[in-house]
Amino acid sequence: MADGVYWDREKETRSREAREAEVLANLQSQLRFVYDALPFYRSHYDAHGFHPDQVKSLDDFSKRVPIVTKPMLRDDQAAAPPFGRYLGCEAADIIRVHGSSGTSGKPTLYAFSRGDWDYIADVMAQGLYTCGVRPGDIVQLATVFSLFMGGWGSLLGVERLGATAFPLGAGETERQLDLMYRIGATVLITTPTYALHMLETARALGYDAAKSPLRLGIFIGEPGSSIPGTRQALEQGWGIKVRDMATTSEMTPWSTNAECEAAAGPHVMQDEVWTEIVAKDDSSRLLPDGESGAIVYTHLKRRSQPMIRFYAGDESHMVYEPCSCGRTYPRLPAGVYGRLDDMLLIRGANVYPSQVQRSLLEVPGTGVEFKIVLEKKGALDHATVLVERDPAATPADIDHFAADLRERVRHKLKNDTAVNFEVDILPPNTLERALSKAKRVDDRRPKYRPGGH
Amino acid sequence: MADGVYWDREKETRSREAREAEVLANLQSQLRFVYDALPFYRSHYDAHGFHPDQVKSLDDFSKRVPIVTKPMLRDDQAAAPPFGRYLGCEAADIIRVHGSSGTSGKPTLYAFSRGDWDYIADVMAQGLYTCGVRPGDIVQLATVFSLFMGGWGSLLGVERLGATAFPLGAGETERQLDLMYRIGATVLITTPTYALHMLETARALGYDAAKSPLRLGIFIGEPGSSIPGTRQALEQGWGIKVRDMATTSEMTPWSTNAECEAAAGPHVMQDEVWTEIVAKDDSSRLLPDGESGAIVYTHLKRRSQPMIRFYAGDESHMVYEPCSCGRTYPRLPAGVYGRLDDMLLIRGANVYPSQVQRSLLEVPGTGVEFKIVLEKKGALDHATVLVERDPAATPADIDHFAADLRERVRHKLKNDTAVNFEVDILPPNTLERALSKAKRVDDRRPKYRPGGH
Repeated sequence: MADGVYWDREKETRSREAREAEVLANLQSQLRFVYDALPFYRSHYDAHGFHPDQVKSLDDFSKRVPIVTKPMLRDDQAAAPPFGRYLGCEAADIIRVHGSSGTSGKPTLYAFSRGDWDYIADVMAQGLYTCGVRPGDIVQLATVFSLFMGGWGSLLGVERLGATAFPLGAGETERQLDLMYRIGATVLITTPTYALHMLETARALGYDAAKSPLRLGIFIGEPGSSIPGTRQALEQGWGIKVRDMATTSEMTPWSTNAECEAAAGPHVMQDEVWTEIVAKDDSSRLLPDGESGAIVYTHLKRRSQPMIRFYAGDESHMVYEPCSCGRTYPRLPAGVYGRLDDMLLIRGANVYPSQVQRSLLEVPGTGVEFKIVLEKKGALDHATVLVERDPAATPADIDHFAADLRERVRHKLKNDTAVNFEVDILPPNTLERALSKAKRVDDRRPKYRPGGH
Repeated sequence: MADGVYWDREKETRSREAREAEVLANLQSQLRFVYDALPFYRSHYDAHGFHPDQVKSLDDFSKRVPIVTKPMLRDDQAAAPPFGRYLGCEAADIIRVHGSSGTSGKPTLYAFSRGDWDYIADVMAQGLYTCGVRPGDIVQLATVFSLFMGGWGSLLGVERLGATAFPLGAGETERQLDLMYRIGATVLITTPTYALHMLETARALGYDAAKSPLRLGIFIGEPGSSIPGTRQALEQGWGIKVRDMATTSEMTPWSTNAECEAAAGPHVMQDEVWTEIVAKDDSSRLLPDGESGAIVYTHLKRRSQPMIRFYAGDESHMVYEPCSCGRTYPRLPAGVYGRLDDMLLIRGANVYPSQVQRSLLEVPGTGVEFKIVLEKKGALDHATVLVERDPAATPADIDHFAADLRERVRHKLKNDTAVNFEVDILPPNTLERALSKAKRVDDRRPKYRPGGH
């Protein structure tokens, strides 16, 4: 099926009109299915006075269909264990069970039917092919294989695509590196955080990282690789092309946002997962091209635990302007650049950790790891950034170097975020390295939750 | 294809003669293949004056074909990296790469062709079906998913068989238990060591383990589950049937030794991996039924990295007497009960750690974990067993209890192994728990290796 730059030329290059005619038909079919077969959706829709017959256009879909949120899924699984009233297949037809990280209590469980698991492999193959993986590549998967979805979808796609999968898991970085060079892995799939840590370790061990056998890095699980500074650090450090895959577990197949060789932000595979950018405070209001808002996703074909207008809590903007690769899919020019629930409110200012990361990477002399600590001093928020210095920097006068760096970081952050951060410069390798998603905020302020929630 | 107790009735119940006619044809075909296509085998065979034409019978095969050992594989991969001169397929046809644990240096790499990976799924499904897994089961895989083969083969088989796979990885025991009960997992696949640790944890947390949702436990990676004491602890503790799967990574598909509902030791699927029991000091001498010796394995169908007369370093005995299940495969009545290179020489006596485990499990009051420490005091070996006391035992006089238990353990070990062990009784949960293979020997004696190897 693969054809030069395309996994499926006809599908990827057809007109928007042709694609959206199919999308609408699939949306209508999904709505009928979930209303008829899934009590979770029927009661949700009945409560909102919505009926599938009301959707005659894509516009109707955005305006009329109520969104689904993570807490709704969690509550439904608690009320109807283990998979909730939105399973969509017979229990005997479930081929795999995985789960969320469940930081706020019990993990939400994900169940996949046999047919969907096979379908997911196809979509993942298209996504990885879009990112540039080819048969013959040796793909090192430095991703956790456990309850969490981690690299499971990537593994599936690599196998379907016809490349060689080398699923090592995350961790044991020295062994990762030894084997990468020994086997000659050509593609690395992991989080940007862990790829940066591997890079630090490689340099410390004396590898010439920029001449690694890798030619391509595909980064998942975190926004990092669409942040220019992080991307540059990874591309130059490893001597690779960097591609972003913007993912969220509930919406598996994970790779419906996958970046092509034009490197202009992930393409949105609108014929697999219909993706809308809506106003943060009104999920029925679609935003125009280029305007930043909340992402709402809909499974067009998946039948086990299908998500229809799932509000992922992610922020992005989308454009339909043509891409030089010839694909007619829209793009997320800056990737999925922040989780709305990661947004920090510091003395009234909105600050994203990813924004802090972007600023730090632009200050020469800083290393790749940082942590934001928030405290309350009296009535006021007090924000500190702990940031390591660049391990390559070996100044004669370390105290002077640190003081100077501290000042430059403080100035940069004030300029970019409008917040006065305290800055602590730490020695390299002081902060804990994350194997999966990095935890970069330590919010010690007393919790106040409106409505006691 | 599945039919009552059989995954493939015709195949599993045909006469020995019919099966062995096919086996011989496959052996001859494999020998021609490896001699013609794999330089590793050709030079090995030429050096021994062996030629495939010399094999006209199964007897010829045992008598004439030189064995292959782990060090030979390691040396060949070092000389012809990364996969050695026995790869057997084009690099582009490799679908997966895994590796050995590599305790003695660099891991040996395992490569699988696309066709073989698919074939392995079929054999694993037959093995797991033999053990009693059925479509509709929810199979919790508490096995490591990383470089090491761990649970990868089991995962493949569960999917092919049509059951639900729940691949959690090893570790995070409290979460394992929570999810096991929440999802209602019916089958557990892990090492016996980790299953015992899960049992201890479950009891400590107040679970009624004997009423777990599990109905079946399949134990891999270690000999434990064929040791009567361990089997009983697992069966009664979890309220399950226990099945042993005797495996070795090089010989993947892993499950060609799989135990049926008669629970009389794993069946040897002789039409997939031809398995011989030979004299420990003469691998060309086949042993009669029931006599204990070294296991030699041969891939009958696998073409990528095929092992032809691989000397695994494992010890067992095999019988062809009929099994009540109706399968005509022979059995390993006591499983694979020791690794020959695990055999300890203590003051001239041969002692297997598995034998020590068996003895300890028969002394009431001991827990499940132990460790053997060997030291040299002057010219003499000095052996100590560290053993935890049963966490359920809460005696009024702990010192008296420990002293009494120490004496009973010492007596039992002297009786069973002819070695005078020092015995140290430890509180529960003192020794480290292994997630994968348990390391139960700490040999601190100065190394003497004949030939300086």
